[in-house]
Amino acid sequence: MQKIVLVRHGQSEWNLENRFTGWTDVDLSSNGLLEARKAGEILRDSGYTFDVAYTSVLKRAIRTLWIILDQMNFMWIPVHKSWMLNERHYGALQGLNKAETATKYGEEQVHLWRRSVDVRPPALERSDTRYDGFDPRYKDISDQVPLTENLEDTERRVLHYWQEVIKSSLLSNQKIIISAHGNTIRGLVQYLDNIPSDGIADLNIPTGIPLVYELDDVCQPIRHYYLGV
Amino acid sequence: MQKIVLVRHGQSEWNLENRFTGWTDVDLSSNGLLEARKAGEILRDSGYTFDVAYTSVLKRAIRTLWIILDQMNFMWIPVHKSWMLNERHYGALQGLNKAETATKYGEEQVHLWRRSVDVRPPALERSDTRYDGFDPRYKDISDQVPLTENLEDTERRVLHYWQEVIKSSLLSNQKIIISAHGNTIRGLVQYLDNIPSDGIADLNIPTGIPLVYELDDVCQPIRHYYLGV
Repeated sequence: MQKIVLVRHGQSEWNLENRFTGWTDVDLSSNGLLEARKAGEILRDSGYTFDVAYTSVLKRAIRTLWIILDQMNFMWIPVHKSWMLNERHYGALQGLNKAETATKYGEEQVHLWRRSVDVRPPALERSDTRYDGFDPRYKDISDQVPLTENLEDTERRVLHYWQEVIKSSLLSNQKIIISAHGNTIRGLVQYLDNIPSDGIADLNIPTGIPLVYELDDVCQPIRHYYLGV
Repeated sequence: MQKIVLVRHGQSEWNLENRFTGWTDVDLSSNGLLEARKAGEILRDSGYTFDVAYTSVLKRAIRTLWIILDQMNFMWIPVHKSWMLNERHYGALQGLNKAETATKYGEEQVHLWRRSVDVRPPALERSDTRYDGFDPRYKDISDQVPLTENLEDTERRVLHYWQEVIKSSLLSNQKIIISAHGNTIRGLVQYLDNIPSDGIADLNIPTGIPLVYELDDVCQPIRHYYLGV
């Protein structure tokens, strides 16, 4: 039996301001910093240890991980960062206030953008200052950098990363923590628990609460639970 | 022309207490945190960018790097951590106060242990609580974990890491920062500037001041300078 720990980053400044974030590199709020600290404390006090960590290239997830590793005295473990664990790209909605967007486009449209698996928000233009193609962190994928994503797009890249990278690490018995985002963790949960698409959209992953999956020898889940709730 | 930046970690709690540290995993002092922050600010304000970072598996070097990357908005770059960049192992002197050690063994003996290239301090016993062979961060080298080192031992592993890892990264034109320790940076400086052994022992590397080497196409140094002094 093997355990893997998933953590959604602590509250960000834009979670607090109720704005669509996506790939925008927003930092943790002061409450988010506290949530990360608590996550580290509970993992440490519950006796968890890690050999390797995975996170996105966005600072709210990286900082959450750093704070957890610091609390656990595990700053020295290898940390792998990949854009494939980034939050879902929210296209031209990034930066907009969710309530204002609902007023402008209607609740129903916003709900579709947020929760349907196959509807994409309006795409960013390449001329938009929010376009990520010139950001050096994406230089290896600059011509394929997403302009918007639906939930399926996000899940596809997350599961690709799971299959190509994380799974082999699990199969070599490494103890793993993943610090990521609401939609990327939801994608992993959907895959692991084999949840149909129409059952996943309203599954909410709480911020800063370690989610433990116990897996069998072929990485199939036995059970899962949140720590400290 | 290629630049590489070397930073010795900020002041640690044991630098402050004047104790031999070596592989003991002591944290930064509050002054050391400030030094790291200033190093990040000057690198950022001087327009430096990095593609990849290297550091030891000791938290004073890792935290210095994290603070620098945070200040520079480069938390997302890959960070490689290796025991080969650790401070020199100080054997059974680790934890002892330097002044008390001088009183006990004589100034001359302590100077020999600290500054001669080939004299090793008394070795740790494997039964000593300070022995590193059971620390999971050294599990891949647990049977070869050092019990003490002279300066040449330290330099040998640092140069091995330079030749095997850092140099190929330089040759592929990556912009590099190394956050490490007094003796590991001194070892790199001795190699790069081709300084004879009897000229290196008293070269002091200041804490938290970025040391820039400009290198030619085959990684030979053109010149070097400290930033912000």
